[in-house]
Amino acid sequence: MGKYHTWYNGVTDLSESIKINPNDLGLLRGFGLFDYFRTYNKRPFQWDWYWSRFVNSAGILGIPVELSKSEALEIISSLINKNKDKEIAIRILLTGGDAPDSSTMIKPNLMIRSEHIVESPNETYEKGISIITHCYNRDMPELKSTDYKRLLSLSSEIKRNKATDVLFYDENRISELSRSNIFLIKNKELITPKDGILKGITRKTTLEQLAFNEFKITERDIQLSEVFEADEVFTTSSNKKILAISQIDGKKIGEGKAGEISKYLLQKFNELTKNW
Amino acid sequence: MGKYHTWYNGVTDLSESIKINPNDLGLLRGFGLFDYFRTYNKRPFQWDWYWSRFVNSAGILGIPVELSKSEALEIISSLINKNKDKEIAIRILLTGGDAPDSSTMIKPNLMIRSEHIVESPNETYEKGISIITHCYNRDMPELKSTDYKRLLSLSSEIKRNKATDVLFYDENRISELSRSNIFLIKNKELITPKDGILKGITRKTTLEQLAFNEFKITERDIQLSEVFEADEVFTTSSNKKILAISQIDGKKIGEGKAGEISKYLLQKFNELTKNW
Repeated sequence: MGKYHTWYNGVTDLSESIKINPNDLGLLRGFGLFDYFRTYNKRPFQWDWYWSRFVNSAGILGIPVELSKSEALEIISSLINKNKDKEIAIRILLTGGDAPDSSTMIKPNLMIRSEHIVESPNETYEKGISIITHCYNRDMPELKSTDYKRLLSLSSEIKRNKATDVLFYDENRISELSRSNIFLIKNKELITPKDGILKGITRKTTLEQLAFNEFKITERDIQLSEVFEADEVFTTSSNKKILAISQIDGKKIGEGKAGEISKYLLQKFNELTKNW
Repeated sequence: MGKYHTWYNGVTDLSESIKINPNDLGLLRGFGLFDYFRTYNKRPFQWDWYWSRFVNSAGILGIPVELSKSEALEIISSLINKNKDKEIAIRILLTGGDAPDSSTMIKPNLMIRSEHIVESPNETYEKGISIITHCYNRDMPELKSTDYKRLLSLSSEIKRNKATDVLFYDENRISELSRSNIFLIKNKELITPKDGILKGITRKTTLEQLAFNEFKITERDIQLSEVFEADEVFTTSSNKKILAISQIDGKKIGEGKAGEISKYLLQKFNELTKNW
């Protein structure tokens, strides 16, 4: 494993040497947002899209980004060069900064760091994952905030059900998994939620670069009941790529393993990243 | 101003010397909760109630409290003794701890620290405060989580409206201000929301120790429109005590200054704390 470095407010150091002020509004007031992406061939995948989303999140919360896109890319390139792993992940964390009064933003704190990637084994992609459902709407879903308290408070329940993640839904529609988007396949049509979600970059990649000219694609509200009647269900995220969901609340989806279209799209994704 | 100290995972130091690991799940994942109270006559006010609420919050999120009530009180007494201010505030912050994988709780982090109290001037208690309204439901309202991102993202709007706080409501009812409870007075009856709120300790003090045998008290759902027709409106919190709200969304409440009952209850509160 290579060494991981962190750039924090202008200074780069080994990640284990970086310390945070306890008055950081991200810690005291949950006033923080982030983005997370990985490299392929040591180059940041879909950098333009991730940076746009990061800047958009910052705008929603009203935290200024005091760094240009090219400055950010320079820092990221230097973090990549300092590390000897085949590939790494990059996390950008922006918070309201240190507040002596515990509540008023003075100057934001920005952290950019490299992280180790844990890849899922091929077997997981063949078998698909098991998830549970939970009635919940993320606050400000279009914002990639640091707010994962609902997921973490559900971790025992997820474990008890031998699942690895949770699908959020409400009386009107499903939205997303805790850290990834969801797609249904029904009669070779790809269906995915349109509103009330974080617009994932792997979701965008799937829609615009993998599936667009081979499948009918529909973005719309999806009822929870539809999920159980789908031919295939898969989830997308930068770490999961295109990962089949084979069981939901203990019920088999399709044949209870990764379906053909899920596997085909994963293969197309792997081709795209191989030549990135 | 006295010196403020922090007890962090068993070690006490000057607060400015305490540093946090950037992998703290409170920072990375908003997985944290806290409580906050103050001293009167150098003794923690309503300690039993605050400690119960803190333990209850921890149970909701599923973060273990690895400290007994008497151990916590011993730490707090030592923080009080180390400080020369007339009175101080105490903040207890519990997070999911440092997570090398950025998401799995291993061992919680617990911080207990003393803080400076900023008292509102008498004039504010006479004039009352001005607030705005915002349609929003806090996630897990019965939990005193660190999630204040909605408030902080509204800070420019609050300022622009020359207000100091925000009242949250939805189509069914009002709930609470960003960090305090709300009471209406109509025909000498005290009315306050019952559900979907954090049960404040100053709210409980008001209901059970100040108003219980002199006023009719009703805990029920309250429509937003009722607020504008109230004779008086006030808010309660450990820092605000009993503070009149004289203007909401630019509209005067009652006579546009602190009403008689609000002032009477504040006086009773001040008597209670004087002899604490």
